[in-house]
Order: sequence, then C-alpha cells, then structure tokens
Amino acid sequence: MMTLATGSGSEKSVGAKNVSDPKWTYAFGGGKAEGKKDMKELLGGKGAGLAEMANLGISVSPGFTIPTTACIEYYRQNKHFPPGMWEQALQALRRVESLMGMNFGDAENPLLVAVRSGSRASMPGMMDTVLNVGLTTKTVEGLSRRTHNERFAQDCYRRFIAMFGSIVMGVERDSFEHLLRDTKRRVGAKNDTDLDASVLAQLVIEFKDLVKNMTGQVFPDDPMDQLRMAIHAVFSSWNCARAITYREIHHIPGDWGTAVNVVAMVFGNMGETSGTGVAFTRDPATGDKNFYGECLMNAQGEDVVAGIRTPLPVNKLEDLVPAAYRELVKTYKILEVHYRDMLDLEFTIQEGKLYMLQVRVGKRTGPAAVQIAVDMVIEGLISPRTAVQRIDPDQLIQCLYPIFDAKAEKQLTPIGKGLPAGPGAAAGKIVFTSDRAVKMAAAGAKVVLVRQETSPDDIHGMNAAAGFLTARGGMTSHAAVVARQMGRVCVAGCEAVVVLDTQSVRIGEEVFREGDLISLNGSTGNVYKGEIPVMESEIIQVIKGELAEERSKKYDAFMMILLWASGVAGLRVRANADTPGQAKIARGFGAEGIGLCRTEHMFFGDNRLPIIQSMILASTGEEREKYLAQLLPLQKEDFIGIYREMQGYPVTIRLLDPPLHEFLPKREDLMVDVARLEYMRGYEEKLKEKRQLLARVEELHEFNPMLGLRGCRLGITMPEITRMQARAIIEAACELAKEGIRIVPEIMIPLVGMESEMKSQKDLVREVAEETMKRYGVKLSYLVGTMIELPRAAVTADRIANEAEFFSFGTNDLTQTTFGFSRDDAAKFIEFYRENGLMGFDPFATLDREGVGALMKIAIAGGRKTRPAIKLGICGEHGGDPSSVEFCHELGLDYVSCSPYRVPVAKLAAAHAALNDEQGKEASGAN
Amino acid sequence: MMTLATGSGSEKSVGAKNVSDPKWTYAFGGGKAEGKKDMKELLGGKGAGLAEMANLGISVSPGFTIPTTACIEYYRQNKHFPPGMWEQALQALRRVESLMGMNFGDAENPLLVAVRSGSRASMPGMMDTVLNVGLTTKTVEGLSRRTHNERFAQDCYRRFIAMFGSIVMGVERDSFEHLLRDTKRRVGAKNDTDLDASVLAQLVIEFKDLVKNMTGQVFPDDPMDQLRMAIHAVFSSWNCARAITYREIHHIPGDWGTAVNVVAMVFGNMGETSGTGVAFTRDPATGDKNFYGECLMNAQGEDVVAGIRTPLPVNKLEDLVPAAYRELVKTYKILEVHYRDMLDLEFTIQEGKLYMLQVRVGKRTGPAAVQIAVDMVIEGLISPRTAVQRIDPDQLIQCLYPIFDAKAEKQLTPIGKGLPAGPGAAAGKIVFTSDRAVKMAAAGAKVVLVRQETSPDDIHGMNAAAGFLTARGGMTSHAAVVARQMGRVCVAGCEAVVVLDTQSVRIGEEVFREGDLISLNGSTGNVYKGEIPVMESEIIQVIKGELAEERSKKYDAFMMILLWASGVAGLRVRANADTPGQAKIARGFGAEGIGLCRTEHMFFGDNRLPIIQSMILASTGEEREKYLAQLLPLQKEDFIGIYREMQGYPVTIRLLDPPLHEFLPKREDLMVDVARLEYMRGYEEKLKEKRQLLARVEELHEFNPMLGLRGCRLGITMPEITRMQARAIIEAACELAKEGIRIVPEIMIPLVGMESEMKSQKDLVREVAEETMKRYGVKLSYLVGTMIELPRAAVTADRIANEAEFFSFGTNDLTQTTFGFSRDDAAKFIEFYRENGLMGFDPFATLDREGVGALMKIAIAGGRKTRPAIKLGICGEHGGDPSSVEFCHELGLDYVSCSPYRVPVAKLAAAHAALNDEQGKEASGAN
Repeated sequence: MMTLATGSGSEKSVGAKNVSDPKWTYAFGGGKAEGKKDMKELLGGKGAGLAEMANLGISVSPGFTIPTTACIEYYRQNKHFPPGMWEQALQALRRVESLMGMNFGDAENPLLVAVRSGSRASMPGMMDTVLNVGLTTKTVEGLSRRTHNERFAQDCYRRFIAMFGSIVMGVERDSFEHLLRDTKRRVGAKNDTDLDASVLAQLVIEFKDLVKNMTGQVFPDDPMDQLRMAIHAVFSSWNCARAITYREIHHIPGDWGTAVNVVAMVFGNMGETSGTGVAFTRDPATGDKNFYGECLMNAQGEDVVAGIRTPLPVNKLEDLVPAAYRELVKTYKILEVHYRDMLDLEFTIQEGKLYMLQVRVGKRTGPAAVQIAVDMVIEGLISPRTAVQRIDPDQLIQCLYPIFDAKAEKQLTPIGKGLPAGPGAAAGKIVFTSDRAVKMAAAGAKVVLVRQETSPDDIHGMNAAAGFLTARGGMTSHAAVVARQMGRVCVAGCEAVVVLDTQSVRIGEEVFREGDLISLNGSTGNVYKGEIPVMESEIIQVIKGELAEERSKKYDAFMMILLWASGVAGLRVRANADTPGQAKIARGFGAEGIGLCRTEHMFFGDNRLPIIQSMILASTGEEREKYLAQLLPLQKEDFIGIYREMQGYPVTIRLLDPPLHEFLPKREDLMVDVARLEYMRGYEEKLKEKRQLLARVEELHEFNPMLGLRGCRLGITMPEITRMQARAIIEAACELAKEGIRIVPEIMIPLVGMESEMKSQKDLVREVAEETMKRYGVKLSYLVGTMIELPRAAVTADRIANEAEFFSFGTNDLTQTTFGFSRDDAAKFIEFYRENGLMGFDPFATLDREGVGALMKIAIAGGRKTRPAIKLGICGEHGGDPSSVEFCHELGLDYVSCSPYRVPVAKLAAAHAALNDEQGKEASGAN
Repeated sequence: MMTLATGSGSEKSVGAKNVSDPKWTYAFGGGKAEGKKDMKELLGGKGAGLAEMANLGISVSPGFTIPTTACIEYYRQNKHFPPGMWEQALQALRRVESLMGMNFGDAENPLLVAVRSGSRASMPGMMDTVLNVGLTTKTVEGLSRRTHNERFAQDCYRRFIAMFGSIVMGVERDSFEHLLRDTKRRVGAKNDTDLDASVLAQLVIEFKDLVKNMTGQVFPDDPMDQLRMAIHAVFSSWNCARAITYREIHHIPGDWGTAVNVVAMVFGNMGETSGTGVAFTRDPATGDKNFYGECLMNAQGEDVVAGIRTPLPVNKLEDLVPAAYRELVKTYKILEVHYRDMLDLEFTIQEGKLYMLQVRVGKRTGPAAVQIAVDMVIEGLISPRTAVQRIDPDQLIQCLYPIFDAKAEKQLTPIGKGLPAGPGAAAGKIVFTSDRAVKMAAAGAKVVLVRQETSPDDIHGMNAAAGFLTARGGMTSHAAVVARQMGRVCVAGCEAVVVLDTQSVRIGEEVFREGDLISLNGSTGNVYKGEIPVMESEIIQVIKGELAEERSKKYDAFMMILLWASGVAGLRVRANADTPGQAKIARGFGAEGIGLCRTEHMFFGDNRLPIIQSMILASTGEEREKYLAQLLPLQKEDFIGIYREMQGYPVTIRLLDPPLHEFLPKREDLMVDVARLEYMRGYEEKLKEKRQLLARVEELHEFNPMLGLRGCRLGITMPEITRMQARAIIEAACELAKEGIRIVPEIMIPLVGMESEMKSQKDLVREVAEETMKRYGVKLSYLVGTMIELPRAAVTADRIANEAEFFSFGTNDLTQTTFGFSRDDAAKFIEFYRENGLMGFDPFATLDREGVGALMKIAIAGGRKTRPAIKLGICGEHGGDPSSVEFCHELGLDYVSCSPYRVPVAKLAAAHAALNDEQGKEASGAN
C-alpha cells in the first residue's frame, strides 16, 4: 500500500498504516462487488443494493462503499478518518478509474464522482450527498471537450460549487440562489436553462468569490481535497440536528453511523437520450402487478425531486430509449425475483445506456402490502409464513378504513386536531345529542356526533352516527373504544372543541350549529369544516353481505393473510361483541368465539331503558324482580341471536358491570332542573317528580364510580340481577340445544377481588343453571369464571382459582387500578408525561409489561398453581394491540379478545409473535 | 370402678368400661383439688377457679368438674355421655357426700347440688345452670327437718321444679310464673315471701302437674335421674341459639365445648346470717385499690341478679357477719396476690360460714385497667412487660374519651344510630355549614356539625365543632378520619339522618333546625335529641397544658404504660400531624417524629384559600408563580411551627396531593347557581362571574378524582408548586438551623407509580434544596422519598428505590386501588359483605394482609433489593390499628405513623407485637 500526498497534512490519517488495518472500502462495478445485499448493517441500504446489483451483473456505475464502521471509528477518533481508510479509498478509486477508463482530476477525460450517504435504515433527505466531485478549473474544460457541450460542463460546475459550498463548507444555500436570481434578472433570463455557457462561467467565478468571502477559504481546486472534504461532510451529517431528530422520532440508534458511497458520476442531463427516474416493480398504492414509475429526460436526479418539470410515466421510455427500457424491464424482473419483494429503483440513462443507482424494498399502502404478499405466494416467490410476517398491523387496518378523497382533503386546512382514536374518514352534519343523531340519521342524513364526552347512554346515537368528535377523553375513552368496536371514526380529546351549549360548539375560531357540515380524519386526528367525500372499505362491505365475495379481490387477499396467520399463531383470537351484528362482523374476520359480551349494552335500547330504570328505582327486592322478569325474555333473545352467529364457538358473557346510576339521568342535570322548576309556576307535579328522582340518584351517587358499587358487587347485593341474567344465558343455550345447536356459555363474574365474592356468585349461577337445565331437560356444558381486573384479584388468584374455572384479564380496569389512572380523566397528564419523556407509551393502548404485566404474571402463576389447566384470556382493549398481543403470547395465554374490527390485527400480531418466538428459539438453538 | 344403676337403661354409657377410660371428672374441696388455674381450657373458667381456690385452702363448697373434653365427646357420640363418664361422676359424687357428711337422695340429711356450666371464655348468662338438684318428695322433708324451716324447704323445691322444668324439660318459664301469680292473687299475697309453707307445698304440686301436662312426663323424683338430666341439659345448652349467636359475635370457636361443675349446694337464704354477693378486689371503674362489691342477706344468687332488692355494699358484712367478712377479706387478698390481677369473686355465706363460688379475672374500664396495671407494677406484683401486655388498645383509648354522664344518657332513647366513627361524647347546637360552625363557636356555643358528608374545605368548621354527624360515609370517611385525628366525636353514615336543605335536617321522625340541641355518643353511634352533659379526658387536658401534670394520677399511669410500651416495642411510632397543635398532642403522647404532614390542609385557612383559588384559576405558569410566591411565607411559617414542636425528630412532609378542584366550589353547586341566576334580573355580572368559575371547574372536573390529576401528577405538570413547597420546607429548616435547632426533613412525593415520576420530582426538589441551602449558607441533611400507595409502585418498587430514599406505605390509597374500593363510596357494600360473611373486617380499618399485604411484601423486597437500608414506614389510617400494627411489625417496617390521638394505641400495639413475637420465638425455641 502506498502513501499518497493528500493536500493538507493535518487531514492525514492518524497513526501508522498497518497490514492488519480493517477493511475500509468495499468496491463494486464491472460485474462484481465485495459486498452483498445482506450487508446492510455494514454498507448501508444503498451500498448493499449497489453491491448486490453489481454481483448480479446489472449495470451500475462503479464505485466503492466506505462502511458504517468507519463512521463509528471516525467519531471515536474525534472526527478523524480511521487509520488506513483514506489510503484504501484512494486505492478503490484507482479501480473505478480503470473500470471507467477515466482518471480522477484528469484534464482530458476527468472522472467525476458522487459522494452519497447511506445508513442501515432509510432516512430520506436527512443526510448529505455531494454530486460532481472532481470538477476543477482544469477538469471542467476536459468535461466540456469530451461532451462537446460547454454549457453542460459549466452548469455542472456551478451546481457543484453551490452544493459543495453549502454542504461541505457551510455557506447558506440561499446565498447561491440569490446570486443566481440576480444573474437571471441581469441577463433577462426566465429559467435556469436560458443561461448560456458564458453567463454560467461568470456565475462560477461569483460563486467561488462568495465562498471565499463567507468562509475565508479558497474554494478547493484539488479533486483529492474535494473528495476528502466531501467524505468528512457525509460522516458529519450523521449528527446534524435534523438527522438526530429524525432518529429520535423513528427510534433509530445514534451509534449505527452512516456508510459513504463514492460512485462514478453518470449524467442524465447529457441530451435527449439521457434521463433519470424512479420506479416500483409493482403498484405501491394498490399492489397491482404493473411496473410503475416516472422519469425525466435530459435531467439530473435533483430535478426530479425539485418537481420543476412534470415527469413522464416510465413506460414512455420504450419509445424514447428502447434499448435502455428493455434493459430496465429485464433488470427489475431479475431484481424482484432475486429480492422476492416489491422494489423501489433509481436509475439514470446516459446517452442511451442504463445505470442503476439504487435498489431497495419499496414502501406501500396496506392494501398493496396485502395484495403483493398474496400474489407473491401464488407466484411461488415467498412462503405463506413470509407473507404473514411481511404485513404490519397498521397495513392490515388500513385495508378497512373508509377513506377521504385525498385530493379534496389536501385543499382544506384543519380547524382542529385531536387524537386519532377511531381511524378512517367521516363527514356529515353536526349533531349534539344522541336522540337527534338517531332522528337525523333515520331521515337519511350522515351525522357526526359532537360532544364534551360520550357515555353508555349515547350508544344509540353513536350507532347512528358516522363519527364522533369529543372535546375530552383519550385513546381509550368511551367514545374511542366504542368507535373502534363499531368501526366508527373518532377524533377524541380535541382541544379546539368548546361545546358552548346543547345547540352550538366552537371549533377553533368558528361557531357551528346543528346541521353544519364537518369532516373527521380519524387516522390523523384532523377536523375540517365542510364535507369531504368518503368511501367505505370493500372488505367490510363483503363481510356485511353488501358486496358479493367473488367481486372483491381485496377481500380474497385480506382473508388469505388472516387464514395463514391463524395457521401459525399460538394464541386464539376472540372478539368483544355485544350484539348479533357485532358477532357477525367478528365471525366475518374469523374470530374463534366471543371473549367478552357486555350485557349492560343490551339495556340501553328504547324498549329496555325504561324497564331497567324502573328496576333501579324500585325500593324492594320483590319490586326489582318484577322488572327483571320483564327484561328476562328480551335478554334471552339477545343471547339467542349472538349464539346463532357463534355456533360451535365459546361465548363469554359478563354479568352486569357498570354502576346503576349510568342508567339514570345525570345528577347535576336533575339538580339544575329542580333549581329551574322552583322558579316556575304550574310545574309543581313535575318538580315533585324530579325531586324524587334526584333523591334516588343522590342515593346512588358516588365520588369515584369506577371504584364503587359495580361489577360483582351489584350481583352480590342484588342477587336477583345475577339470577335473571344466569337464567337468560342458560335458557337461551337450552333452547338452541333443542334445535341441535351446541353452545358452551362461559359466564364471567366481573370485578372479583376476593375468593368469597367469586364463590357467592358462582354458587348462585350454578344453582340457577342446574334448575334451568332440569326444567328444559337439557344437559349443557358451561363454565363460570372471572375477570382479573383488580390488583387484589391478581395477588390472590391462587385462592380465586378455587372457585373460578377461567380467568380473563380485564386489562382496562387492571391498568386503571394498577396505575391509579382513571381512563376518563388521565388522558391529559398521560399526554404531558409522554411529551416530557416520563412515559414511552399510553398504558391504555399498549399493555404496561413492567407494572400491569407483573401482576398478570403473579395471577397466572397463582391460577395455574391451583388449577393447572385453567383457561386464560384477555378481554381488555389491549387484546387488539400488537405489542400487547405479543406479550400475551409470551405469557402463554390461551386467547386474546378484542373489538370485532381489531380481530384481523390481533390474528396477525399473534402470528408474528409465534413466528418471532420460533425464530428466537431457532437462533438460540443455533448458538 | 363399679357400675351403678342409673335409673333409665337407655341413658347408660355407651360402650364398655375400660381401665384406659379418659379422666372425666376433676374433684375439688376439702383443701385440695385435681385441677388448677392453668387448666381453663379443660375445666372452664369456673372449674379452674374453684380448683385453684380449693388448692389454696380457701373455703369452697366441694364438688367436681366434668371437663370440656366430655362435652366435645358428647357431641361426637351423638349426644350420649362418653363411656365411663357417668360412672366417674357418681364416684366423684361419693367424695362430695363424704366431705359434706350428707348423702345425695338421703331422706334425713340430703345433699343437694348445683349443676353449672362453665366454658373457657366467659359467656355470661348464655348457658344453663340448675340449682338444688336432688330435691324430691322425700328429700324435701329431710331438708325441712334439718333446717327446721319448712317454708325454706318448700320454697327451694318450687324454685327447683320451675328451673329444672324449664331448663331441662323445656316447659316455658312463663307458665310457672303465671301459676305463681295466680296463687299470689288467690291468697292475697303481695311478695313471694308472703307465701307460707303450705301454699308453697300446694304450688309444688301444681308445678309438677304443669310439667306433666306440658311434656307428658312425670317430674323426676329420683335424684340420680335429676343429676343425669341436668348434666345433659348443660351440655346441650352449649349449642342453644343464643349461645351460638354470642359466640359468633365474640369470635369464640364452636368446638370448645363447656365444662359442667357439680357443686354441693350452700344456701345464702337460710336466715339473717346467710347471704350471697359479688365483689371486685379493686374498683373496676376507676382502678382504685378499694375492695368493692355488693351483697344481699338471706338470699340466693338469682335474687341478686334479678335486682328485686337493693343490695348492700360488701363492707356492711363487717357488722352483720364479722367472722365471714374477715375470712372474705383474707381470701380476696390471698387470691389477688396469687393471681396477680384484679379479680371478680362470687360467694355465699351460709349461717355465718363463707363459701367461695367463683373467682375470675375482673372486667374493668380502660382507666381502671391502666391504673391497676401501673399500681401492680409498683406493688411488685407484675413486671412492666406484663402490665403492657395486659392493657388492650380499646382500654387505652377509653382513657381519652370525653364521656357523657351515664345516668343522663340512660334516660334518653336514641333517635338514630350510625357508625361509631370518632369515639367519645359530644353535645351541642346543630349547625349545617362550616362557616356557621366557626361563628357560633366563636360566640361561645358548643356546636355539632350535621352534614350529608364532609370535605376538606369543612376543616375550619370541623375544627370549631365538638362533633360531626353525617348521613353518608364509613369508618374511614373524611369526617371519620378527621374526627380521630382531631380527637373529635363522630357518628358517620347515620341512615336516620336526612339533610333536607341547608337549614334543616330530619333525624328519625323529627325535623331539627340550626341551634337545636343534639348529643352524639361516638363510642356507640347513638344520637340523642337534647344535650347530655359531657366531660373531657383529664389526660388530654394535661397534654394541652390545661391541667397541671402533678394533679393527674390518671395522666401519670397512662404515660407510664406508654413508656414501658416504647421500651419493648421494635417499631417506632410517629404521628400524622398537619399543624403545630397536632404536633404538640403527638409529642405529648410520645410520638417519635411526624410520619405524614399533609401540606394541603394548610391551604384551607381563611387567609390562604383565596390565594390558592387564584393560583388554580390562573391560566399561565407565570401567573401561578405569582400566587405561589404569596403562599411561600405562609407555608414556611407552618413548617417552622411544626419543626419547633418536633425538634430533634424527623418530620416527613408530603407535597400537595389532592385534586385541585377540592379547593374550588363544587361543580353542581355552581351549575345550580347559574341556573337560578338565569331566572333573576339585575345579576348579570354575578352570572358572568359564576359562569367563568364554572368553566374552569368544568375543566378540572373528573369522573374519578381519586384516579385523576393529583399526587405527584400535580407537581410534575405544574413544577412551580413543587418548587414553592420544597423551598418552604428547606427555608424553614435553614432558619431553625441558624437558631441551632436541628431538623431532618423527609420530603415525600405522593402517588408515585413510575420511577420516572420519582426521578423527575426528586431532581426538582434537590435542585431547589441545594440552591436554598447555598443561599442560607447552611448544610442540612434531608431525604427525598415516596409513598407506596399504588399497586404499580409496589410491583416496581425495586426500580423506584433507585430514586427514593425512603418508602412510606399509604395504605388508604393502596387499599382503594388494590380492592378497587373508593372509601367514600364502598361503606355500603362493605357493610353488606360483612353482614353476609363475605368479609371478616373492614379493609379501611384493618390492613388486608392477604391482598394489600402481599403487595407490601413485594414492595419491601423490591425496595431492599435496590437499597438494602431503605427506611420503611406506614402512614395510612392503618398505622393506628392494632392488628395492622402487628402486621407491620411482622413485615419489619421501621415505623408506623398514625393520627396523634392514636399514637398511644400504636405504641401499645407495637409493644404487644414485639412481646408476642418474642414469646412465639421462645415457644418455638423450646420445641
């Protein structure tokens, strides 16, 4: 290895050269390369792609990659090149010179190079790239002569000085632009292309003066100095402010470093048979198997990015440069088969010859990801397991969103932004009450319910609305949970929303009234004035039976992925469903049972609420039983409907859970009513009635309803409720059994904290069940179990398992009590915590493994100690969150249960967890 | 052993007699006995006492005890005497006959016996006793002849038939009384004593006929039949309904069984030198060293109990039967020294000769218990350890109660009954608001605050009131907790109370208005109309400096017990005190520091509430700081006052904890105000103002304030609050340090659930502290730690201990979150649970070892793993509950902290725990 003079001595490599110096360059070009595609960590994405293409004999411009290890060492050595690196780079450069038949710095036939960053993870536009390195007062003449195009040469030179001057030497980019504008004004030119060679040559001189004035340094006229400085600049750009911020947001470690690619320049701007472009091997929006891309003739890459000229579809190249196009098609096909994935390509055509600049796996929308994965399995490119592993949960969800017309949305400015709590798009007329929502929807209007917050008695209104906008509440507020369960759009906790009264709301600066149009993007949290057109997902249309299955390719592909996912998953997936309609959706997505049927939601119907209210207002157990007897047949019908949808699968039914005052008018509303009526004449009867109602509501009033008379505490203090519900559950199952439909009800006692509670309710349920089965002459299998949703239940699970035949983790409540967070109130400070780095995630969205998870582990150990085969599941909102599903897999639960619309995500996440687990085991087995 | 004919063959012992038959009788009398006082489990309290007295040579009527094991065996054998028992009884009876020189059933000189129950634990009046067994048509003549008193003999006989007929044969006691009344009417007699022998003889015949008519059985005329049947009856009475109920209430196991004492009858009704009585060796009400008791001449025990004649003081015997009295005095002195305790004695004097019937440790009031224990240590009878062990916590508390004049209370009927939440007695004028309470108290009135419930902003009113009566809330409701901390009387959750409006309340049937008199007994929960005179405890008067120490013997004794308790206790005891006044009381009881100083209570003063309200209503951090700056000097003064009282002891100060809306008017009140003002003219300004306030209150409103923006969440989202408090704490300590007073503040961060929270607040506190100390030029020691009051804190304690220098278990909140019980709301169903056997105790009063305790253990293990010497304490209400203190001792905590008035109880409980622990270890060491 020879030592070369490098211009300025201070920049010489530190330390002595050594035969055992690490390898600091990886060459590519000429049909071979020292790297390959699996070396992304070392060579960065770009370097690995270039090497792979070279190995495949694909036409790439030759060059070499300085690996990420050099960047790491560079920082370790206090921003000096690691020993031997520069010397190896110069040697690699010789190879490029010989492959290109040109020499770097040669006055006659000068080689120019691009110096490009390229890290392990794509960080688009975050780090620096310098093109045309090697242009000097001498070489610019050579370039001009060789290309017979002086204007082209001077244009390259002025671009190079501006790029190098700004990126490497730190002069404001704008200063160059100012000079350019001044020149254009002076000579009366409209576009850059109107400037001729002499003007550009003058501009080159002015640019150089600018650099000298601003930095005190002469613009380097030695190509080696340029190269050295450009490599320094790319290394340094790894730690520029915007790159650091980007890495923080995308969780990219700061110690990965970037590779540097030094590549011989090829020019897309050498005339009408030159050009540059980007392409995808399949359509990234739909997944269709079409070669898809755009190009610009007589242009360099930066022109495509700048969007100054409108690009052409890539297949136009067939007419313009047929040989290059054929080469490009051949190349993309070879690459796709080789990579077994949809690819994103960059290329340049120089005077009719194709050079590939980059290959990487292409980004795609959810529907495209699903379509591509399924197609590639069919084409024999990948296995079903790989297909499943390649889809990420967000992509799956995207397939289900109703969406806005993107163009229409872009034209509008949001008037507010909240939490993207129920994804999708909804537009419609504002309503403020559930009753109005129902009426207006019945009259054919699409409505958006706007509220301070929602509560269980808004269910009918929420069902009628296309979306909900709330001023208060987080990602798991009532509105958000219902939205995801019902597949509605929801923007929650939008601070711009101020509900003024029951007739008007202020959003941002403007006041809206009932009937005014509004649009919600539940995927971004944006709120718009006016109506943006919306379309529903095809897949849901098929499941609802509104679109024939055979007509939807999207549906087929989606279901195929779910089927494959189920095949590899360890965890089973059930749904939280309270109505036959929800059960149908859940089955449509392949849910293997119901993990949570909340019986209280059944009480809010028009024909039921008055009965349950009378039941609550009753003063004796006897009177209560009278009203419960009226509810019994209705509740039984509910169960029959759900059982029918779920035949053959288990149905877990939770007994009445919420505090009873949720079924009554609000206390403060009654207080205000009474205060008003006291001022009015002729309303004495009404006043008396309201006062009586208020008195009962006062009796039921609680300071912390979450921690009050609810869950099994209801069934224990009012056993007649449990008795009615148990009867309805078992009678429904008996009646279906007589039709030959087999149902295994799993009766779930909520909010158990003590073994005694579980025993008391279980005994009651068993008594009613035995008596009912005897009456019907039917023998059913059924289980009685509990939710584990209190810390006390978790730590005494060994005792509770004496009575409970299954556990289902109610992680919503368990999270509330473990953290001491009310999910209705905590959104504000959770957001503050996340913004200030006190919390990495919202524990109501993603299971808190450290705290809640620790209690779950205690509960599982306790439950299994007492009852080794105890059935274990989870039915909190977390059942549909991928990270939480993964944790449930690790814990060894039997199933997760989630909102019907989250079933696909849960299935996919369960499959991913199983595959990762398997691969982890294989990896550790290989060690 | 010989077999004796026993009358009816069916009642013969089951099974063959065997030389290895267990011992079924324990004889006593004639100066010796087979049993002794330590054999209470076997012989029952009465049997053991009789045996012990016989051994001591004290005059007891001879007899024998059939042990509790026989009763257990009796039930095991399906209500048959165990084999050999009857034979052994007959043999023991022979010994009694020979000692008495009389024979059972003898026509000339008949021995009569009493057959008395006697279990391990005293169950007064619950089980049966039959006197005069052995009286028949034959022996009644012998008795008459021997006593030369036919009337006496017939009177004994008719009493015996009625007693035996009702207890053993099941005839209603009333039927005998009816006949007696008829006879008296017929012969014109006023008293029983007016009936002569022939009338009584006629009554005997009528009684026997009654028995025959009612039972179909002839009244047994064989003394052996009588004895056998009487023993059966006593065994059976162990399981009579009232005995079972009594045992349930007093937690006495049902399998202990009762012993049966068969004792030769002696007669207190044989004339003017005969009599019967009960006595205490010291005064059971005051503990004074006076022989204290009552007697009736010419009477049997049942006459004393019946209360027909007014008894004489026991020292009157000195005149009436001087020899017997001298014997009695000698006996009680021997016994007291022997038992080393105050004793309860029963005796009969038959014709001038004393017979002891019973000796047992006497029940006593709290003040008496303390006085007796201290006196006995001084007299050398017991050790200080024994003295400490002998006092039970309730007795200690009793010493501190203000009390009603018992006679006056007895004359009244309660108008309502609630929970005895704050013990003691209070009487005064009803007030409904805190402001009125303060005004009326300032005007010199004693007032009782009557409310639906109380809240922190009632503190000034509660401070001014003698007692609180609430319609809602349990033993740890706000009113109850404050009551015990302030030493106020409280009856909480009284269902008879219906607050009609701010001017009137209905209690039971009657409506009361402000100024009406009411009396509360906080020890029983009774509520009375009118004013019952009340006196304050001397001990508290001394501590408050209102009574000179040297004038109170009670104070001396009380403090002596506390001193001895501290000496043996392992746990230290601190107090929860928020003001210098409370700190003074705490120190008065010997608290060794403050374990919880709640800074929020300091904000409710008249001069502070407006400032903190302005602070809350401020819209920017800057504006908030302005008001905090006004609070700083006030808060500093608070700390200086507390530090002065506590010099040399640690003071743990908790940063602001409650949700801010607690400092503002109630939301529903504002809503009602706004609704009203909307109907009124000329109040536009007021309406606007209320609406603005309501808007801010709405912003702060939470569905579950317990789980909302409180605790460290306040200090994190509004760091200026933490900064002000830290500054006040450290400045106060620095200023005292300059006076030479050494203070170690322990700054406590509330409601921490995550390490990140602890770190964020600790860093802030440390920053302020360092800066403040630098400013003062003072170097202080101080700690920053946290409360462990959330399940998440418990399970992640190992991580939190990275930041926290001490843990204090906030078991109130930890109980709430572990159980999912709001202590403001859960009282109702907790009571239901307890009544229905689902819970053995109120977890807010007594620490739940199984659930909450499990989390505490996890937290302790975690804390010590990270920081082996971490200081551990508890500052929930449980710190003053004996069972909970015992558990804290077992857990190895460093200290408990409780309300100032509970400090004595905690000290005593800590001592008991240490002594039990020691004895347990000795016992297991001995094995």
